[in-house]
Amino acid sequence: MELAKIVEILEEIAPPELAEDFDEGRIGLILDLENDVQKIAVALDANAYVLEKAAEIRADLLITHHTLIFRPVNIIPKPLATSLRLALENGISLYSMHTNYDRAKGGVNDVLAARLGLRDIEDVEIGRIGKVDPCSSAELAARVSECLKTPVMYAGEKEGIKRVMVFGGSGFRNEYIQIARERGAEAFVSSELKHDVLRSNGDLCLIDATHYATENPGMEALCPRLRELLGLEVEFIEQPSGLKAITWG
Amino acid sequence: MELAKIVEILEEIAPPELAEDFDEGRIGLILDLENDVQKIAVALDANAYVLEKAAEIRADLLITHHTLIFRPVNIIPKPLATSLRLALENGISLYSMHTNYDRAKGGVNDVLAARLGLRDIEDVEIGRIGKVDPCSSAELAARVSECLKTPVMYAGEKEGIKRVMVFGGSGFRNEYIQIARERGAEAFVSSELKHDVLRSNGDLCLIDATHYATENPGMEALCPRLRELLGLEVEFIEQPSGLKAITWG
Amino acid sequence: MELAKIVEILEEIAPPELAEDFDEGRIGLILDLENDVQKIAVALDANAYVLEKAAEIRADLLITHHTLIFRPVNIIPKPLATSLRLALENGISLYSMHTNYDRAKGGVNDVLAARLGLRDIEDVEIGRIGKVDPCSSAELAARVSECLKTPVMYAGEKEGIKRVMVFGGSGFRNEYIQIARERGAEAFVSSELKHDVLRSNGDLCLIDATHYATENPGMEALCPRLRELLGLEVEFIEQPSGLKAITWG
Amino acid sequence: MELAKIVEILEEIAPPELAEDFDEGRIGLILDLENDVQKIAVALDANAYVLEKAAEIRADLLITHHTLIFRPVNIIPKPLATSLRLALENGISLYSMHTNYDRAKGGVNDVLAARLGLRDIEDVEIGRIGKVDPCSSAELAARVSECLKTPVMYAGEKEGIKRVMVFGGSGFRNEYIQIARERGAEAFVSSELKHDVLRSNGDLCLIDATHYATENPGMEALCPRLRELLGLEVEFIEQPSGLKAITWG
Amino acid sequence: MELAKIVEILEEIAPPELAEDFDEGRIGLILDLENDVQKIAVALDANAYVLEKAAEIRADLLITHHTLIFRPVNIIPKPLATSLRLALENGISLYSMHTNYDRAKGGVNDVLAARLGLRDIEDVEIGRIGKVDPCSSAELAARVSECLKTPVMYAGEKEGIKRVMVFGGSGFRNEYIQIARERGAEAFVSSELKHDVLRSNGDLCLIDATHYATENPGMEALCPRLRELLGLEVEFIEQPSGLKAITWG
Amino acid sequence: MELAKIVEILEEIAPPELAEDFDEGRIGLILDLENDVQKIAVALDANAYVLEKAAEIRADLLITHHTLIFRPVNIIPKPLATSLRLALENGISLYSMHTNYDRAKGGVNDVLAARLGLRDIEDVEIGRIGKVDPCSSAELAARVSECLKTPVMYAGEKEGIKRVMVFGGSGFRNEYIQIARERGAEAFVSSELKHDVLRSNGDLCLIDATHYATENPGMEALCPRLRELLGLEVEFIEQPSGLKAITWG
Repeated sequence: MELAKIVEILEEIAPPELAEDFDEGRIGLILDLENDVQKIAVALDANAYVLEKAAEIRADLLITHHTLIFRPVNIIPKPLATSLRLALENGISLYSMHTNYDRAKGGVNDVLAARLGLRDIEDVEIGRIGKVDPCSSAELAARVSECLKTPVMYAGEKEGIKRVMVFGGSGFRNEYIQIARERGAEAFVSSELKHDVLRSNGDLCLIDATHYATENPGMEALCPRLRELLGLEVEFIEQPSGLKAITWG
Repeated sequence: MELAKIVEILEEIAPPELAEDFDEGRIGLILDLENDVQKIAVALDANAYVLEKAAEIRADLLITHHTLIFRPVNIIPKPLATSLRLALENGISLYSMHTNYDRAKGGVNDVLAARLGLRDIEDVEIGRIGKVDPCSSAELAARVSECLKTPVMYAGEKEGIKRVMVFGGSGFRNEYIQIARERGAEAFVSSELKHDVLRSNGDLCLIDATHYATENPGMEALCPRLRELLGLEVEFIEQPSGLKAITWG
Repeated sequence: MELAKIVEILEEIAPPELAEDFDEGRIGLILDLENDVQKIAVALDANAYVLEKAAEIRADLLITHHTLIFRPVNIIPKPLATSLRLALENGISLYSMHTNYDRAKGGVNDVLAARLGLRDIEDVEIGRIGKVDPCSSAELAARVSECLKTPVMYAGEKEGIKRVMVFGGSGFRNEYIQIARERGAEAFVSSELKHDVLRSNGDLCLIDATHYATENPGMEALCPRLRELLGLEVEFIEQPSGLKAITWG
Repeated sequence: MELAKIVEILEEIAPPELAEDFDEGRIGLILDLENDVQKIAVALDANAYVLEKAAEIRADLLITHHTLIFRPVNIIPKPLATSLRLALENGISLYSMHTNYDRAKGGVNDVLAARLGLRDIEDVEIGRIGKVDPCSSAELAARVSECLKTPVMYAGEKEGIKRVMVFGGSGFRNEYIQIARERGAEAFVSSELKHDVLRSNGDLCLIDATHYATENPGMEALCPRLRELLGLEVEFIEQPSGLKAITWG
Repeated sequence: MELAKIVEILEEIAPPELAEDFDEGRIGLILDLENDVQKIAVALDANAYVLEKAAEIRADLLITHHTLIFRPVNIIPKPLATSLRLALENGISLYSMHTNYDRAKGGVNDVLAARLGLRDIEDVEIGRIGKVDPCSSAELAARVSECLKTPVMYAGEKEGIKRVMVFGGSGFRNEYIQIARERGAEAFVSSELKHDVLRSNGDLCLIDATHYATENPGMEALCPRLRELLGLEVEFIEQPSGLKAITWG
Repeated sequence: MELAKIVEILEEIAPPELAEDFDEGRIGLILDLENDVQKIAVALDANAYVLEKAAEIRADLLITHHTLIFRPVNIIPKPLATSLRLALENGISLYSMHTNYDRAKGGVNDVLAARLGLRDIEDVEIGRIGKVDPCSSAELAARVSECLKTPVMYAGEKEGIKRVMVFGGSGFRNEYIQIARERGAEAFVSSELKHDVLRSNGDLCLIDATHYATENPGMEALCPRLRELLGLEVEFIEQPSGLKAITWG
C-alpha cells in the first residue's frame, strides 16, 4: 500500500491539528522514504532497539509515540547515525503520533482509562476522568500497578476515592492538577511526578505509574485498529522500561 | 544578631557565585525584613507548612533550599499570599541557597555521598563520585533506600558496581549521565528520572531515590554547622514527601 | 460581601479588556485574599502610606489606579515587604484598574473632562475632546489649575481656544498629540510633558497639570458609584503630590 | 578646517565611549558632508528652526545635544525632509554629543553645577554633587529658577539642605535618586519628574527645572571652548522652551 | 497634479498589500515632499546617478523599483547624503513599488513574460508561467539573451522545453523552483542563481538573465501607462548594468 | 587509521576556530560513524551525486566544503534520506571544512590566488590580495576564465589593473568590497554578484567567476596534502557546475 494512503488513515486516527504547539516538527512523517508498505511495526519509541526489531520483522513503516529527533540537528552523532542507518538500510519510513494521539478518540488516554476500568469517562483537555468504586489511595495504587503491570510510586493518603483523572505520559503539571481538582477528581494517575508539583499539590492522591506503563497500552491498542483499517500486517514491538521499585517504611 | 552578618556567613558556606545561571533571582535574601535574628529555622522548601512551623518556634529567619517565588510575579494568588502573610506577620526573613549549596564543600552532595557511605569522594560538576564495595544494582538500590529512608525506583541490572555518582535533586540529565560514564561510574543516584533519559541511558544503573530524600539530608546537616558558627538557636523543620512505592513483578 | 461578587461589578465599571497591552499583570485582583468585604478603600496608588490608612479605617479591599508590583519580582525588598505586610496582616485584598478605567465610560477621562467643564464631549482613544468658551492659553491653564487645584506648566501661547483634548496621566505622546490635531483640538491637557514631544509639537497649547491632579478625581468619583452599587462603606484615601510651582519671567 | 580634524577635537571634549549604550547611532557625525568648515553653530536640538538659523548665519557644521533622527528610518516624512533639506542645501554637517557630553569633564553637568553655584563638586555617574549654604526646599527651588531662568516644579519640603545632586536632562530615575541618597544629597535638580518616581522618593527634595534649562547652558558653554580650540567662528543658537508655570495653593 | 492624487493611482497599479512582508518600509512614498508634480521620472534604482538625471529633466517625482534606504538609518553617510541632497534640492519626491509591482497585473513579471513571447500566461505567486515552441536549453537561453538584450548564464541542458516560468529579480529560491516543478515548467528564467540552489535543482533548466535585465523592462513599461492615466510628462531613466559575459568550453 | 586521528590532522589544516560565527554546526564531523578509515574522498558538496561516487570508490570518509544539513532538521525529507542512506549504508563518515578552510593557510583562497598567478599575496580577512601585470578588465576576466576553466560575468571597465582581490565563494559583500578598495585593489574576483552590490560598487572591476570555479580548486588541492600527511588513498570527486555563458552586445 502507498505510504501516502496510510498517512491519510493515520491522520484520521490522530489528527495532527490536535497536537500541542511544542510538538511542531515531531508529528507525522519524520522519515519519508516514499515507499510501498506491506508491513507496519508499532512501538512507543523510535530508537535503535526498536528499529532493529522492526528490521527483523521486515517492517516498511514504524509508527511510534516519540519521535526520532527531538531537537533539530545538523550534526549527526553516532547513536542517531545507528538508528538512522537501521531505518534507511531496511527501508523503514518513520511516522510519529504524539500529543495528537494522546488527545484523540481511542488514543493513549482512552486506552489508559479503559485499562484501569474507569466508568463514565469524560474528556478533560488531553486527559480523561472516570469513576471507580470507592477505595483508598493504597488500594487504587495497587490496582493501577496490577492493571498496568508496573511498579508505582504514590503520595496523598485518602479514603473513598470515587473519581480518578488519568493522563498518559508526564501529566503531573500544576495546570492539569488544577483541572483534576476543578472537575472533582480525588486521584490523578500519570507519571514523572516532580518535587515542586508534589509540594504544591495539597490534597489529591497522585499516582506515578511510570511514563512507559501509562502510554504503552495506547500504542499496543493501535495495532488491531490498523490491521482492520488497512488489511496489512501490523506488529507491536515491546520494550519494557525495566524499572523496579523498593518499598520503604 | 544582625541579618546582614548572618548573610555573610551563609555566603561563605554556599557562595552565590557557585549557583547555576537559571538560579538568578532564586538565591540569597528572598525576603529581606532587615531584622535582628535570634532563632533560625532550616527546611527544604519555603511553603505554608514550613512557615507555620517556623512561626510556631518563633524563628526570625528561614533558610531553605527551594525559594518561595519560582517565577517572577506581579499578581499574588491566595497560596502565595498565605505563605507571605506567615513570613511577614511573624517577622521571618527568607534566605535561599540552591545550586550554590549543591555544589559547595559540605553541601547537599557531600552530605548525600557521606550518607551513602561512599569512599574516596571526587567532585564532578555539581555532583560527587565515590567507591562502594562491589554490589549488584538491586543491592545498591536497597542500600540507598535504607540509608536515605526512602522508597526507590531503579533500572539497569548490573553486577559488581564499584563506582557510584550521586546528585541530590533532579540530576538525571543526559549531560550528567555522560559525566558519570566518562568518570567510570557504574551507577547514578539522583531523582526525577524521565523516560527519554532512561531510554537513551544504555548501560548505567540509575537509582531514583526521590528529590526529597536526596536533598533533605544536606539541609538538615546545615543546622549543627550554623549553631557552631553563629551561636544561635537553629532548628530543622522536617516535611517528608509522603511517597510510597508498590513493587511489581 | 464576597470578593468575587465585587470583582464582577468592578469589571462592569472598568472592563479589563479595555486595558492597553502593556498593562498585562497589572489589572484586576493583584492580591487575592478571597475574603469577605465589608469596607472598601479607594486611592490613586497602592503604597505603604495608602495601605496604612486603609488599615486604620479597617478596609478589607483597596482599589487603586496604579498596581502594587509594577515589574514582576521573585525577590521581595524591604519597601515592598512593608506594603505587603500591611495588606496581609490587615486582610486587605488589592484590586487595580488602570488603562481600562481610563478608557471606560465614567472613568478617569470622563471625570477629568467634566471637572474642566468641557461640553459636547467625544471619545478619542483613551482620552476625551470637548468644547470650551474661547480663551487664551494662559486663561485655559489658569482654569485647569483652579479646577484641578494643582500647579501647572504649559507651553504654546494661543488665542481663541475652543476645543480641548484631555488625557489623565502621562498622555503627552506624539501619537495622541497627532490625534488631538486631527480632531481639531487647539489645547491638550495631560501630564509628564517631555522635551522631545514639546519640541516636535508645533502649534498646540500643551498644559501639564501633573499626573496626580489629572487622575485623582477619577478615583475619587468611583466612591459614590461603589457605595450605591454595593451598599458598602467606601472611603477615599487622599495622598496629594506635594508639587509646587515657581513662576519665572 | 577639515571636518575630520574638528571631529577629533570634539571627541576629546566628549569622548564617544562615555555615552550610554542606548545612544548607539546617536553620537558623532550624524550627517557627514565631508566638507570644509569655516563656521560652526551650536544648539540644543537639531530641528528645522535651528537649521534655518544655522543656514542664515552660514554655518558649515551644527553641533547639537539631541540628534536629528532618534529612531532609525527608511521612510522620510515631510518634517524630517524639511530639516534634511536645510542641512543638505546649505552644506551643514551635523554632529551630536549626548550622554557622552553629559558625563564629560566640562560638559552639561559640570556647567549646570557651576551655574547653580555648587561647591566641592564630585562626579556621580553622569551627574554631579556639590555643597550649598544651608537652605529650605523653597529657597533652593527659587535659586534654581533664578540661576537657570526657568519656571520650576518641586516637591519634598525640607530645611537645612546642604548637599545637592544635579543631572541635566531627564535624570529622575530611581537608580539616580538612590545614588543621590547614598551620596548624602538632600536635594536633586533634574527634569521630567514622573509620578512613580515622585511616589517612591521618600524624603529627597526633587526640583524639576525643565529639560531645556538644565541642558542648554552646557551647550552654550561649548562655544567659547570651541572658538579657542579651533580658531573658528562659533555661534550659539538659542531656542527657549516657552514653558510657563502657574502656582497653586 | 497633487502628489497625493498620483499616489492613489500608483496604488491602483501596484497595490501595496501585494508586497512581501520583508518589504515593510520600502513601499510607497519613501520621501514625501507633499509637492505639486508636473513631471515624473521612472527608473529601476533610486541612486545618485538616477537622481542627477531626474534633476536634469526637472522631474518632481521619481518612481523606482528599489528604494533609497534599504535598512533603516539614523546616521547619514556621504553617499546617502549625496542622493538625498539631489532629491531635496531639486524637490523630487520618491515613490517605490517593489514586490507589489512584481506581483501586480501588468507589472514586472507580466512585462517580462510578454517580452519573452510566452503564451497562455498563468500567475504563480509573484512569477508567471507560459508556453513556448519546443526548444533546447541553449536555444531558450539565446532567445532570452536576445529579447532582454543581456548576457546570460544558464545550467541544465534539456530538449523540448515547452513551459517556462519567469520571475524578475532574484527569484532562484528553492520554494519558487519547487513551484516551477509542480506547475510543469521545464525552464526557469530569473537572476542571482546561487550555488546551493543550483546544486539541489535536479532537472530544471535555470537561466540567469541578470537582475537588471529581468526587471528593467517592467519599469520602462510603466511610463506609457502613467502618461495615459495622468496626462503628465513621464520619462524613463536608463542605467544599464554593464555586465559582460565570457564563454568557456 | 582511526577517524579521530584524521580529524586531528584536518583541524591542523583548517582550525575550526577560524570559521565564521554563522558556520556553527556546519564545521567538523557532521556524521560521525567512529569508523576506521582506509580511503578518503574529497569534494565540494556533500550531496547524493557525490556520495554515490564516494560509495563506488569505497571511501570511508568524505571531506567537503559545504555541509550536508544546512539548517537543523527534525524531519528528514526524501532527498536528505537518499544522501544519508548512501553515507550510512556505505559506512562513510562526513567531515566539513568551510569558512575555516577559506581563511586557512593553503586553503581555498590561497589556492585560488595561486591559480590566478597572483604575486606578493597578502591576507585580507578571509580573502587574498596580490599583484598582476597591468591589464584591462576584459583581459583580466579572460584570464580568470582560462585559469579557472569557467564562464565569467564581469562589470566595471578599467585599464591598468595591477592589484586584484580574490575571495572564493560568495564574497561580493559591501564589507569585502570596501576592504578591496581600502587595500588598493582595482579588481575583485569572487562569485554570486548581486544587483545592489553592483549598483553601489562605484569603480572596482568585479569578476564573477562562479561559486564552483572559485572554490573547487581549493578542495582539489587538499588531496595531495592529505595523501602525504596521512599515507592513505585520497580521491577527488569532481562535479562541475554545468554553467554556460551567452555573450551579448
